[in-house]
Amino acid sequence: MHVHCINARAASHLYDVWSTLLCQRCFYFPFIMPALQINAERLNESLAQMATIGALPHGGCCRLALTDEDKAARDLFCQWSRDAGCDIRIDAIGNVFAVRAGERHDGQVVLTGSHLDTQPHGGRLDGVYGVLAGLEIMRTLHDARSTTPTALAVACWTNEEGARFDRGLTGSSVFTGTLPLAEALAMKVQAEDSIGNKTVETELARIGYAGKPDALGLTVRAYLEAHIEQGPILEDQHKTIGIVTGAQAARWYAVELHGADRHAGTTPMQNRSDALMAAARLMLMMREAALKLAPDIHLTVGRVRVTPDASNTVPGDARFMVDLRHPEERTLDAVEAALNALLAQVETLERVQAHMQRHAAVSATPFDDGCVAAVRAAAAACGYPTMTMVSGAMHDACRLARFAPSAMVFVPSHLGISHHEAEWTEPQDLAAGAQVLLQALLHLAQ
Amino acid sequence: MHVHCINARAASHLYDVWSTLLCQRCFYFPFIMPALQINAERLNESLAQMATIGALPHGGCCRLALTDEDKAARDLFCQWSRDAGCDIRIDAIGNVFAVRAGERHDGQVVLTGSHLDTQPHGGRLDGVYGVLAGLEIMRTLHDARSTTPTALAVACWTNEEGARFDRGLTGSSVFTGTLPLAEALAMKVQAEDSIGNKTVETELARIGYAGKPDALGLTVRAYLEAHIEQGPILEDQHKTIGIVTGAQAARWYAVELHGADRHAGTTPMQNRSDALMAAARLMLMMREAALKLAPDIHLTVGRVRVTPDASNTVPGDARFMVDLRHPEERTLDAVEAALNALLAQVETLERVQAHMQRHAAVSATPFDDGCVAAVRAAAAACGYPTMTMVSGAMHDACRLARFAPSAMVFVPSHLGISHHEAEWTEPQDLAAGAQVLLQALLHLAQ
Repeated sequence: MHVHCINARAASHLYDVWSTLLCQRCFYFPFIMPALQINAERLNESLAQMATIGALPHGGCCRLALTDEDKAARDLFCQWSRDAGCDIRIDAIGNVFAVRAGERHDGQVVLTGSHLDTQPHGGRLDGVYGVLAGLEIMRTLHDARSTTPTALAVACWTNEEGARFDRGLTGSSVFTGTLPLAEALAMKVQAEDSIGNKTVETELARIGYAGKPDALGLTVRAYLEAHIEQGPILEDQHKTIGIVTGAQAARWYAVELHGADRHAGTTPMQNRSDALMAAARLMLMMREAALKLAPDIHLTVGRVRVTPDASNTVPGDARFMVDLRHPEERTLDAVEAALNALLAQVETLERVQAHMQRHAAVSATPFDDGCVAAVRAAAAACGYPTMTMVSGAMHDACRLARFAPSAMVFVPSHLGISHHEAEWTEPQDLAAGAQVLLQALLHLAQ
Repeated sequence: MHVHCINARAASHLYDVWSTLLCQRCFYFPFIMPALQINAERLNESLAQMATIGALPHGGCCRLALTDEDKAARDLFCQWSRDAGCDIRIDAIGNVFAVRAGERHDGQVVLTGSHLDTQPHGGRLDGVYGVLAGLEIMRTLHDARSTTPTALAVACWTNEEGARFDRGLTGSSVFTGTLPLAEALAMKVQAEDSIGNKTVETELARIGYAGKPDALGLTVRAYLEAHIEQGPILEDQHKTIGIVTGAQAARWYAVELHGADRHAGTTPMQNRSDALMAAARLMLMMREAALKLAPDIHLTVGRVRVTPDASNTVPGDARFMVDLRHPEERTLDAVEAALNALLAQVETLERVQAHMQRHAAVSATPFDDGCVAAVRAAAAACGYPTMTMVSGAMHDACRLARFAPSAMVFVPSHLGISHHEAEWTEPQDLAAGAQVLLQALLHLAQ
């Protein structure tokens, strides 16, 4: 007979969730016993304390990957994890693992986690919540002197956001073999470093988080990541827990337009090859074409650069990035083709040359049925209102899913705001997500 | 009887230009005598040598104001001017004057000049030509051991382009009292200096060109500036010399759009307040509205910035600069009103807040009839094909014109290209402009 942890709230809803209480391993109804309860107050205090590192004026955080702020956040996580009885292991790409030994020494681990780095104008929850929910579970088990058959660990993945290095998901990509370590280490710091000699490698060494390859030393049996939704759906539907069955596909494109630098005061408008006006026109045409094909597409231009970038010169060159996301690959294929077809149009309309190149792509990621079922059962046992959904955002779990059985737990984001200082989730929803994560992990670590 | 300098080519066209040979002071026909001739080869060699400072790969120059390159160009000019018998004087905003004493000590000077700084992707002629044409005149007079009744001087005005300091015409503005010295010295270096402690004052001191107020010490009787047209008109009309009667008006606006930073993967398109898409739409609407009111308008967006500038975040803020030019103030008034009226439209269409503020303005500048007549007479005496025109670009002469009688001499720009490495004027046209400048200056310095 296995030990199942069902909280008190769940006990009052037993008639609703009867079927979900079937033990997933033995198909018997489990004993109803007092469940381990995470400490909601401690979780929220830790989130508040972490948010002081790289704090922005309106409640958000700027804690770019491998900066001094990222180091301070990692240091704090390591200290808290050691205090909760965990062993800290750091791998060659700087991923940090807080490992809690299991009863069996089977070389396996059930992993949870997320990331501590943020966007430049980031919130206090994106990524951080998944890490500190994992930590709260370690603390809860430590306080209860409870053990699990298989080891548990909390991962902090390096550079999930990609805001400082152009590409994200770096730590989880290297961990899962999607990105060669050498290539990841060679990635350069963008924007702030005009000389170009700051890389992931030099920055990891600088902050003291360059560890050893395969430092975790355990086989990942399953991976669960708790995260804020970063979209408006759970709140709109009045649901507390999102049971995430996968993530949508994403593609990134680099677009370049070449016209001719000309004097702003002397070049007649009809003689111009203005790369910025062409870029503006192309962005709007792209948005219109994409929405016509798929009203549920996500098309974003987040960065733009013009050359020579002088207010009295018609720009000769413009570059921008397109971020394109949709749950279905074939929709992305169709939109990509439509975007490519616009280049010739803008070339004719604006007398420029236009190029578009796919810069990166992540295909749609289905999560593991068993892990999804574990989340669903845990949420049901807790009695929270749930819905099944696809993640709009990319997460480290998308990398882990190709490497080990994985799934995610979402909690609501107020107004769907994320990558923004106003990012907010009600404390009781954060606690609910951590409780579901605890119970699902305990199940998977049997 | 005054000495009039008429070149040999002019002598063969006397029947065409008879009336222009009337002495402007005594109304007698002057003696025909061998004219002073500038050395075309030396002028072009000096332009080529100057172009090695800050040289770009395709023949252009990057010699931003008050950089090491600007210092090197100034040093070379000073050395050349001293070799031609001139006295160097440097004022408090770093304007350099190469002064050649006159026969009379009347405290007056007839001034010519332009600037040595360039755009980031500038050509080798914009500004430089006017300075080195002036130098060539000094050399010609020096070689001929010739004197003028009134002193002559060549000015190199500080930071005409404004590419490194956001605003240009700095040296000529301070010299003519349009811009307070203290305000000019406090102007900050843009872009390259994130700390923000480099100013005109610190950069002038760094390169050793911080001189004393009123260092010229002479009253400007007249100012003539030779310049490449930077537009296609002279070439299209097969004219060698543009007799410039004034400059068009120009206004600069700072536009800001405020939306909301959102996650690129999770925020439905219809919920977005995307500041960059709004900026793109507004730029295109502005261009369309301006052209509808005035087909001969010049409207340019040369710089754009988005925040947070991350490829996977919907931009919450966007800023851009609008450069607007037309010969008539009332047309600019009408276009400005039309642009302002678009803000509310884009606010509704794109769910953002939009603001536009006039950042700077230069009203239309009429040049002095006497100076224009001197240029016209000199060009006619030389027998070059001429046309009367208005300058599309801003020049230091626009500042000088409000301070002393002024005019300009234009030479053709191949394909109208300027602010670009491909900027080009035929050597014989450069020589023609310098010859016209010489003869007009000699007339004004009588």
